[in-house]
Amino acid sequence: MNAHDHARSQASAYLEQLKDLIRIPSISTDPERKGDIRRAAEWLADDLRCIGFERVEIKPTAGHPVVYAEWLGAGEGAPTVLVYGHYDVQPAEIEAGWDSDPFEPVERDGFLYARGASDDKGQVFAHVKAAESLLAAGRPPVNLKLVIEGEEEIGSPHLSAFVGENQDLLKADVCVISDSGMPKINEPAIVYALRGLVYVELEVFGPARDLHSGQYGGTVHNPAQALAEIIAQLHKPDGSVAVPGFYDDVLPLSDEERAELAKKPWDEADWRRTTGAPMPWGEASYALHERVGARPTLEINGLVSGFYGPGQKTVLPAKALAKISCRLVANQNPTRIYELIRDYVARITPPTVRSEVRLLQTGEAAYVDRHTEAMQAAIRAYEQGWGSKPVFMREGGSIPIVADFQHKLNLPVILMGFGLNDDGAHGPNERFNIEMFHRGVQTAIYFYEAIAGR
Amino acid sequence: MNAHDHARSQASAYLEQLKDLIRIPSISTDPERKGDIRRAAEWLADDLRCIGFERVEIKPTAGHPVVYAEWLGAGEGAPTVLVYGHYDVQPAEIEAGWDSDPFEPVERDGFLYARGASDDKGQVFAHVKAAESLLAAGRPPVNLKLVIEGEEEIGSPHLSAFVGENQDLLKADVCVISDSGMPKINEPAIVYALRGLVYVELEVFGPARDLHSGQYGGTVHNPAQALAEIIAQLHKPDGSVAVPGFYDDVLPLSDEERAELAKKPWDEADWRRTTGAPMPWGEASYALHERVGARPTLEINGLVSGFYGPGQKTVLPAKALAKISCRLVANQNPTRIYELIRDYVARITPPTVRSEVRLLQTGEAAYVDRHTEAMQAAIRAYEQGWGSKPVFMREGGSIPIVADFQHKLNLPVILMGFGLNDDGAHGPNERFNIEMFHRGVQTAIYFYEAIAGR
Repeated sequence: MNAHDHARSQASAYLEQLKDLIRIPSISTDPERKGDIRRAAEWLADDLRCIGFERVEIKPTAGHPVVYAEWLGAGEGAPTVLVYGHYDVQPAEIEAGWDSDPFEPVERDGFLYARGASDDKGQVFAHVKAAESLLAAGRPPVNLKLVIEGEEEIGSPHLSAFVGENQDLLKADVCVISDSGMPKINEPAIVYALRGLVYVELEVFGPARDLHSGQYGGTVHNPAQALAEIIAQLHKPDGSVAVPGFYDDVLPLSDEERAELAKKPWDEADWRRTTGAPMPWGEASYALHERVGARPTLEINGLVSGFYGPGQKTVLPAKALAKISCRLVANQNPTRIYELIRDYVARITPPTVRSEVRLLQTGEAAYVDRHTEAMQAAIRAYEQGWGSKPVFMREGGSIPIVADFQHKLNLPVILMGFGLNDDGAHGPNERFNIEMFHRGVQTAIYFYEAIAGR
Repeated sequence: MNAHDHARSQASAYLEQLKDLIRIPSISTDPERKGDIRRAAEWLADDLRCIGFERVEIKPTAGHPVVYAEWLGAGEGAPTVLVYGHYDVQPAEIEAGWDSDPFEPVERDGFLYARGASDDKGQVFAHVKAAESLLAAGRPPVNLKLVIEGEEEIGSPHLSAFVGENQDLLKADVCVISDSGMPKINEPAIVYALRGLVYVELEVFGPARDLHSGQYGGTVHNPAQALAEIIAQLHKPDGSVAVPGFYDDVLPLSDEERAELAKKPWDEADWRRTTGAPMPWGEASYALHERVGARPTLEINGLVSGFYGPGQKTVLPAKALAKISCRLVANQNPTRIYELIRDYVARITPPTVRSEVRLLQTGEAAYVDRHTEAMQAAIRAYEQGWGSKPVFMREGGSIPIVADFQHKLNLPVILMGFGLNDDGAHGPNERFNIEMFHRGVQTAIYFYEAIAGR
């Protein structure tokens, strides 16, 4: 039985194993979940040992550990593939709108509903099971190195150092990452660009303590109002970001690239179906797929101030907080963007309040050359897995570590996403298309074979 | 021993009793505190029975009960005084910045620190203890009726109906309310105007669910941003409210009234000391004390949207909520103001999001004639209690029921506040000046005597 047939014969077993991994609530941002993070790492390490990886280690970092596994049995003449993924997940509270327990996976209408089902447990697990099938069917044609980290959802704060300190260990010929999506299941697409990230907190301070709105209202600049006034100045009426210098380093889209992207446009009907929002918004001179993929953005991720429970409290709050993040494109420096926001906010903050912009996270954008041999192998793998030729697309999300793999390890990176854009990653009712999981396993096997020239 | 001496001899006992009342966390907005609300009503009823009131009842309403007590022993020839106060309090969580448990009163530097110490348990209890002293010293010169409600902090939703249904029971010659403050302890001031209130929730809806900011950011109008944009349009750059028609029914301040108010100006140094804010804000053509007393205002009481915990979550939130309230002045109709806000918000909401303005509460402003006989009695009582003549002032807060006492019972109302403006009502570390409590008891006795012509 070849690896492809083996994977088909094990399809339901692989899915049940994925459910077990998903049941571990490995939320990296929550200090109370540290034990679950460890448990997920150990679960993966056990599975990797069990399926035949020669060397499996849970490598400590200053934060959550990295699971490292290698099988070098293909020998020195064969290419080495480095697979990167993450076993940590975003927070998920059932009250946020989940129809079922986010950590008890449920199959419904061909989807597996659970936090992490798509982002990224399901996608990285497709590679683990591809490796298992190849190992079960004989000698895999490539050497394999797996790096599965536990801090992607908090911005991979320690992975860059890990990569820098382990350059020899991680030596490979190509890096493959499955942590992205495509618009439609039957129209395969390869992501070649990811956005970078800068995450800040903007806090506005007014009176020294919460005040009675009747006794002081009308004489004190309300910090919640002042925060709103500042936020309202972060965008121009045309939907562009108003922070001076924000677009300075953005490389313009070439006509060739616009044409390539236009092969897979994001039509408004589909946009309406997946967002449920009244109508599109944003930079009118760019198509919807260009706005998320090729343009930097600034989003308010959260607001909090004063009293917001049921009922009423006539408080004049002492302070107001906004969580704000920017998605950046290639050639933008996240730290520089933070400084631009900080300076602009300082300039537009009126003297009646005080403001602070605190940097929480940065991550570089990534841009992948579409003309490498590795990319030809990826195109072939998708054609075999899907039965049709993939198109190229830009992805709006961020995987900051991609830039490190490119620059520190000098590796071509292939973003081999098995997710769908409406998987609901980071939101309630995240799901993974079960067919995509199985195609993912097959496509990963095809890719390893294509890289080896088979 | 006359009533004044009796009160002096019982000063520490009265303070200890007040502490017991304060220890009951009678938070009217919190459904889980219903038992404590009941307990506070029973505690008061027991005390009123014990000190000699002839008829004491806990009267049910559709919400929290009203404590009603009467002593009519002065006879039909004597005037009847109706005292109004409230035994419910604002919410208080120690995490909001309290230096000690909000429901365990602490004496420090002449102040009693606790939620409700000033607003309004301490102030209404001064009347209870004034009655106790008069009853202990012989036959009081006036008939007394006390109405102490449990829903003032949630806008007295059932007291208006209670007053309407009990017009005979509440028949009196004057109504006195101690639920306000003065700027300085040794400069007595009588409040003659209170602001009305309209409390609304403004909610902005965008996508059908929380989205991944990378996958959708740049194409969806972020509801937190849209809310900020709407809020930023609620005021003009000059600090006035931008809602069209907002000021239409505001009566201009007469020169005589401005001169009277200017006797007790709010100087900027004092404003800075009590607010701790960087510098004043608001309508520049009005003095600070006019902005809070004589002008209507619009305040953001709270904001909430998306993710606001520690760390980061790159969510594009589905919705954003603001709690907003207006303080209104005499002749403004709160329901009309709600309609103006609702219509204005509907007009400025862009088609890329949906918004709702929901009415939570209304309360009418109150304006008291400064030239009645009852007011002359109040002036005399303050002169005796303080040793100096009181000035008149407007108060920025709201006691919506005052308008009902004026119009439904056709009673002159006296606002006999024993609080100080920096008591921190509604905020953390609320406190009551202990000297103000004792002067309050004395001044209430003087007032009852003055009303009786003694």
